[in-house]
Amino acid sequence: MIRCVGITDENTIEKDIAIQDITQNKYKWFWVDFDKPTDEEINHLSNTFEFHPLAIEDCIQKLQRPKLDYYEDHTFYVAHSVREQEREIMRDELNFFVNENFIVTFHRTEAKEITHVWEKLHAGRNTDMWDTFYVFYQILDKIVDNYFPLIYKLEDELDLIENNTQDRSMNDLMSELFDIRNMLLNLRHSVNPMRDLLYRMLNSHHLVEIKNRREYFSDIYDHLLKLAEMVMSNREVTADIRDSYLSLNSHQTNNVMKVLTIITSIFAPLTLIAGIYGMNFENMPELTWKYGYFFSIILMIVIAFTMFLWFKRKGWFK
Amino acid sequence: MIRCVGITDENTIEKDIAIQDITQNKYKWFWVDFDKPTDEEINHLSNTFEFHPLAIEDCIQKLQRPKLDYYEDHTFYVAHSVREQEREIMRDELNFFVNENFIVTFHRTEAKEITHVWEKLHAGRNTDMWDTFYVFYQILDKIVDNYFPLIYKLEDELDLIENNTQDRSMNDLMSELFDIRNMLLNLRHSVNPMRDLLYRMLNSHHLVEIKNRREYFSDIYDHLLKLAEMVMSNREVTADIRDSYLSLNSHQTNNVMKVLTIITSIFAPLTLIAGIYGMNFENMPELTWKYGYFFSIILMIVIAFTMFLWFKRKGWFK
Amino acid sequence: MIRCVGITDENTIEKDIAIQDITQNKYKWFWVDFDKPTDEEINHLSNTFEFHPLAIEDCIQKLQRPKLDYYEDHTFYVAHSVREQEREIMRDELNFFVNENFIVTFHRTEAKEITHVWEKLHAGRNTDMWDTFYVFYQILDKIVDNYFPLIYKLEDELDLIENNTQDRSMNDLMSELFDIRNMLLNLRHSVNPMRDLLYRMLNSHHLVEIKNRREYFSDIYDHLLKLAEMVMSNREVTADIRDSYLSLNSHQTNNVMKVLTIITSIFAPLTLIAGIYGMNFENMPELTWKYGYFFSIILMIVIAFTMFLWFKRKGWFK
Amino acid sequence: MIRCVGITDENTIEKDIAIQDITQNKYKWFWVDFDKPTDEEINHLSNTFEFHPLAIEDCIQKLQRPKLDYYEDHTFYVAHSVREQEREIMRDELNFFVNENFIVTFHRTEAKEITHVWEKLHAGRNTDMWDTFYVFYQILDKIVDNYFPLIYKLEDELDLIENNTQDRSMNDLMSELFDIRNMLLNLRHSVNPMRDLLYRMLNSHHLVEIKNRREYFSDIYDHLLKLAEMVMSNREVTADIRDSYLSLNSHQTNNVMKVLTIITSIFAPLTLIAGIYGMNFENMPELTWKYGYFFSIILMIVIAFTMFLWFKRKGWFK
Amino acid sequence: MIRCVGITDENTIEKDIAIQDITQNKYKWFWVDFDKPTDEEINHLSNTFEFHPLAIEDCIQKLQRPKLDYYEDHTFYVAHSVREQEREIMRDELNFFVNENFIVTFHRTEAKEITHVWEKLHAGRNTDMWDTFYVFYQILDKIVDNYFPLIYKLEDELDLIENNTQDRSMNDLMSELFDIRNMLLNLRHSVNPMRDLLYRMLNSHHLVEIKNRREYFSDIYDHLLKLAEMVMSNREVTADIRDSYLSLNSHQTNNVMKVLTIITSIFAPLTLIAGIYGMNFENMPELTWKYGYFFSIILMIVIAFTMFLWFKRKGWFK
Ligand SMILES: [Mg+2]
Ligand SMILES: [Mg+2]
Ligand SMILES: [Mg+2]
Ligand SMILES: [Mg+2]
Ligand SMILES: [Mg+2]
Ligand SMILES: [Mg+2]
Ligand SMILES: [Mg+2]
Ligand SMILES: [Mg+2]
Ligand SMILES: [Mg+2]
Ligand SMILES: [Mg+2]
Ligand SMILES: [Mg+2]
Ligand SMILES: [Mg+2]
Ligand SMILES: [Mg+2]
Ligand SMILES: [Mg+2]
Ligand SMILES: [Mg+2]
Ligand SMILES: [Mg+2]
Ligand SMILES: [Mg+2]
Ligand SMILES: [Mg+2]
Ligand SMILES: [Mg+2]
Ligand SMILES: [Mg+2]
Ligand SMILES: [Mg+2]
Ligand SMILES: [Mg+2]
Ligand SMILES: [Mg+2]
Ligand SMILES: [Mg+2]
Ligand SMILES: [Mg+2]
Ligand SMILES: [Mg+2]
Ligand SMILES: [Mg+2]
Ligand SMILES: [Mg+2]
Ligand SMILES: [Mg+2]
Ligand SMILES: [Mg+2]
Ligand SMILES: [Mg+2]
Repeated sequence: MIRCVGITDENTIEKDIAIQDITQNKYKWFWVDFDKPTDEEINHLSNTFEFHPLAIEDCIQKLQRPKLDYYEDHTFYVAHSVREQEREIMRDELNFFVNENFIVTFHRTEAKEITHVWEKLHAGRNTDMWDTFYVFYQILDKIVDNYFPLIYKLEDELDLIENNTQDRSMNDLMSELFDIRNMLLNLRHSVNPMRDLLYRMLNSHHLVEIKNRREYFSDIYDHLLKLAEMVMSNREVTADIRDSYLSLNSHQTNNVMKVLTIITSIFAPLTLIAGIYGMNFENMPELTWKYGYFFSIILMIVIAFTMFLWFKRKGWFK
Repeated sequence: MIRCVGITDENTIEKDIAIQDITQNKYKWFWVDFDKPTDEEINHLSNTFEFHPLAIEDCIQKLQRPKLDYYEDHTFYVAHSVREQEREIMRDELNFFVNENFIVTFHRTEAKEITHVWEKLHAGRNTDMWDTFYVFYQILDKIVDNYFPLIYKLEDELDLIENNTQDRSMNDLMSELFDIRNMLLNLRHSVNPMRDLLYRMLNSHHLVEIKNRREYFSDIYDHLLKLAEMVMSNREVTADIRDSYLSLNSHQTNNVMKVLTIITSIFAPLTLIAGIYGMNFENMPELTWKYGYFFSIILMIVIAFTMFLWFKRKGWFK
Repeated sequence: MIRCVGITDENTIEKDIAIQDITQNKYKWFWVDFDKPTDEEINHLSNTFEFHPLAIEDCIQKLQRPKLDYYEDHTFYVAHSVREQEREIMRDELNFFVNENFIVTFHRTEAKEITHVWEKLHAGRNTDMWDTFYVFYQILDKIVDNYFPLIYKLEDELDLIENNTQDRSMNDLMSELFDIRNMLLNLRHSVNPMRDLLYRMLNSHHLVEIKNRREYFSDIYDHLLKLAEMVMSNREVTADIRDSYLSLNSHQTNNVMKVLTIITSIFAPLTLIAGIYGMNFENMPELTWKYGYFFSIILMIVIAFTMFLWFKRKGWFK
Repeated sequence: MIRCVGITDENTIEKDIAIQDITQNKYKWFWVDFDKPTDEEINHLSNTFEFHPLAIEDCIQKLQRPKLDYYEDHTFYVAHSVREQEREIMRDELNFFVNENFIVTFHRTEAKEITHVWEKLHAGRNTDMWDTFYVFYQILDKIVDNYFPLIYKLEDELDLIENNTQDRSMNDLMSELFDIRNMLLNLRHSVNPMRDLLYRMLNSHHLVEIKNRREYFSDIYDHLLKLAEMVMSNREVTADIRDSYLSLNSHQTNNVMKVLTIITSIFAPLTLIAGIYGMNFENMPELTWKYGYFFSIILMIVIAFTMFLWFKRKGWFK
Repeated sequence: MIRCVGITDENTIEKDIAIQDITQNKYKWFWVDFDKPTDEEINHLSNTFEFHPLAIEDCIQKLQRPKLDYYEDHTFYVAHSVREQEREIMRDELNFFVNENFIVTFHRTEAKEITHVWEKLHAGRNTDMWDTFYVFYQILDKIVDNYFPLIYKLEDELDLIENNTQDRSMNDLMSELFDIRNMLLNLRHSVNPMRDLLYRMLNSHHLVEIKNRREYFSDIYDHLLKLAEMVMSNREVTADIRDSYLSLNSHQTNNVMKVLTIITSIFAPLTLIAGIYGMNFENMPELTWKYGYFFSIILMIVIAFTMFLWFKRKGWFK
């Protein structure tokens, strides 16, 4: 679907314009949104707008990195929006062709951020405040705001993993930890290039229009800086949790081993003694002694107690 | 609560001024403190002071990163103070709007650093020395000074963990180590951006007033550099402690296993021999021998001694 | 084999020219391809073209790093193409001598990327669009496009390893993980210097011709940035998988140990009791009791049950 | 103690001058050393020299990071000297106020480096060669030279740990490794900021006097670069040693486990057989067979041999 | 030994000149080589050449880092050559004093690279092509070329370790891996500063003579870049191998434990039953049953089979 809106020099909104009728002279500025376009609709990029083939290729190809390219009379931007789907971070690409006269947005998947801003513009309040860069700012701001719930959710899951270990199996916890690490890694692939893109936008000498709205785009950059730090530090927390588990496991194995060794060490000699006096040799003098049985039991107790003391002195009962 | 203080051109302090009476012309400079303000009081930011909506949004939203933003006639700063609460580092945000005529401080949580400086100013000594940037310096200095006790406390806890391992369970130690790592990570999230903020303040071409007080803000920057190093190196120490424990555990498991294996290896054949001569076959010649019992005991001793020598030669008793 | 093609000032293609007939004056530009050249053919580099001995040495020697060198009237480039062969990343070196009049390509192994572009040029469409830098761009673009299938394949293998652990032996999985890590390391050795090479090409003050085609070479640079990120993050995923396995293994060992210890702890005392009442002392009063056998069995059940409760209370059955 | 020395315009040394008599006009240059000063003596910093309160605070406070601060007519430096005390790196702070006319050194702990240079100056050779920056260079050079023996000692200890493992307990070795890592970490806290300080000194536009003696201060910088590398690489060696131990331990545990499992697997069935034929059932036909005993022994041997072959085929004896 | 050679303005070589006869005016340029000089010969550095004391100190002291220092009429360089000796990387220091008129080489250990170039010069071909910087280039090129065989050897050893694990003991492999890591660490200490030295040489504004021979010194820089990457990535491979071993070991321990636990779990109850019916109570009804023995054996088989099924269902036989 292609949808077009134009703002006249008198700041009135002309809605539902046909793509063919959009000409650069008629409107103060206009916005064309390619929303999951068909192949035929995509052709307008080259025919109607005559954008550069490489920019069009970036639109069509799957998941280009966030970036900006300068072309003669406009700038081309690639941004990523993110969403979670079945424990995977899905990244959707949004493309923008922006100059003072037009903003062309292109996305092959649904983009609720663009629809949100589209409707806000059509609501028709303060139309004079709007221009192409304000539309662009609003969409980017919305995109970046939508990163936060995802990472807050991952943080909450990490807190759960960290705290109620006892309720779930180790297998589950490790598998979830691995998934969270993976999702953080995927988030990083959008957050870091988006941060670098905003940095370039704020510091480029070519983008005068963005410099004039510096405080707005700076606000988005702040959020991306914070996101980048959150992603990085949550990855460190996942590693810390895993290492703690590993240490505790190794320590528990040690303790279990000690119990086993103590049990074995105490019972092995006693069982041997019982075995010896259970032998059927004809000539075994002890067997005929009156207190033979009594002495054998005493011997067992002495041995068990000695072993116990020995392990105690080695500090195995701590 | 909003509290206001103004300093006249004659350096006298006018206390408890109403927010409505603060005008930029009447005082040499003034300080307005928004101390846990109500929603109604917050409106003064936009109505009375006409600050930029994005700066106001930063004040209201939870926990913005430390940063500075240039606005036309003032600069906006975000800083973090820290405190420990139930083994978590709590970070409180403090916002500052500063120029030569005014300093507006805004904080939604209690800020003892601001109260400290507020009272110092009201004490009325050397009032001529004070101006808005000196107030700002004093608060920042106090904030950063308050980072040190927290990290010194963590260092002391690490020393305790490192030294008297024997008194507490491994579980406790590992859990505490994890908490300390987490707190250091949280500290890093305030210390590093604070450090970068001070660096920008010292090196910005726009902030002439701070350049003129360079030695003061440099002193805070020094402290933040030291804090950043302490946080980083204490995190390395926590990792070292954990890795040492892991190594020692793994070594102890090894030793415990050796004891178990030696015990089992010595007693298994002896017990088998006792078992064999405890069998009830009618035709077992050894049983009728005069020294059968004696020989069987000798055989057991020989086997036990041989096993012992074998393990000794393998170096298992070291 | 040496093959030459020249484009005249009238944009006609002259094919199969002998190396001796290529002179810089006759053609608008020409392309000479040294395709697995013999030692004799290599001599043309110094005799016919009089290239610098160090550049020729780089052509001849095995696997120079990707780079560029400025010479008086041309620039010399080294690039890497990659392919997989028996679970190893093979890197092939391609050398380029480029200026406005000629492009000389040199490769000691087969280079399907060069053949692809060679045939595209010979197809003869839009010959006026082509020049030496367009040839160079096309080959580089093809080379870099060929990196993607390799890394996508490695990503798919990682997904397989991560998911169906149960079907293959740990040995196999670890060995494959190691191979994938190794291949990613080898890819990094081509991707990162290629990325740096493109960065230098785009930012060098000497390379006016590349600046004029900035959008084309930028496109390649984008791809290399993405490749570099993919290589790095896939290496992190391999480490995550290995660490997860390690944690799970250590946890399972712990569980197996607990089963062993419980079994041993329950049966060791029972077996001792049976052994004691199997002793052959003449004077063992219990043996003559009417309910001696019954009591001994009861005693065993009580001991077993007590041990069971003790382990249960220690939480070993969770 | 405060000690003062002045050099006149005729290059004669005036020793043991009282602090009150030091005036900037009387001497070509002078050196005042605050050697573990009393609180009263410290007051001279503000009263006699009128140094900046922040610089004085840095002198008095414990362990400031190495750094330099520019003041109007002099520069203030903080440096660290190091020494080992009971397996801890102790860092002592030395403060310097330097310009062309004076050098004021301040240290709250003993500083043998300063005493060394003090005595060298008082020896009175080549007095014309000396000036305040040469004094400063000599002290810094001495301080940095004293870092080397410490790190060489740690390197030697690491070599010992790496080589004669067999002579000491694992506990000791791991504890010592941990201490060495800790000491290297502490060294890094002095070496790296010292290196950065020297870098700033060499590259600052304000420090003309140091630029004029560039080769001297470069020499110190070289040493600090080497020290920084040695610290870093020795920390890597400690990690390598620990990881090697961990690997070997884990491998040995594996081997010990195999021995235990083989022993248990062979003797468990044999002991069961012996137990079965030791049962007292009235009707056990085998017991009355002539070769029953013989067959039972044969059966045991066959089982033991089969188990042995099975483990051998599994490769457990390698 | 000191050996001198001079080249006259007519490009004739004068060999075996005495050090006293070398004057800067007589020859177009000359080369003096201090080859393992005696203390007396070292004095020529200060007496005959009047080099700076700090440069001379660097010559004399053990193993200075590679670097360059500018002096008034010449530049001073330190380089490292490497060789393996008993599984350790030995680094030898070579010092160069170079300007257009002379090159003075100084080395306290044998330097086959210098001898190689010395003989090449004395062979007398193309003498007009040679000058001091060409000599310097030739020696550096030779030094760096000699790094490659060492690292190729280490790579081959790593391949061996990775592949035929089964032939050597784990102890040996881990010890060799540790040695290789150590050697790579030592190589890095020469390669990285050498790389930085070449970078500085190529980018310094002071070294016009090197800029004029840029392509030659760039060639060495390329090699050092490649070496640095090889060292780094081989260290990563060593870590990968060690981690793989650790994972596999931990997995094998797990498997061995399972075998042990299964054996123990099956035989413990059977042995107990045999023990019970081996007790000598007078009143044990089962003993007198006709099929008591038969039933007891059946019971054992049922128990063994049940245990087997239980472990099978838990997946322990996979
Ligand atoms: Mg796309
Ligand atoms: Mg936002
Ligand atoms: Mg917003
Ligand atoms: Mg938390
Ligand atoms: Mg998963
Ligand atoms: Mg904001
Ligand atoms: Mg806020
Ligand atoms: Mg402070
Ligand atoms: Mg202070
Ligand atoms: Mg400590
Ligand atoms: Mg906790
Ligand atoms: Mg700036
Ligand atoms: Mg200070
Ligand atoms: Mg080549
Ligand atoms: Mg491409
Ligand atoms: Mg393409
Ligand atoms: Mg995946
Ligand atoms: Mg392999
Ligand atoms: Mg593209
Ligand atoms: Mg101090
Ligand atoms: Mg020195
Ligand atoms: Mg010295
Ligand atoms: Mg060593
Ligand atoms: Mg210790
Ligand atoms: Mg030196
Ligand atoms: Mg030397
Ligand atoms: Mg070379
Ligand atoms: Mg060469
Ligand atoms: Mg290999
Ligand atoms: Mg060794
Ligand atoms: Mg080369």
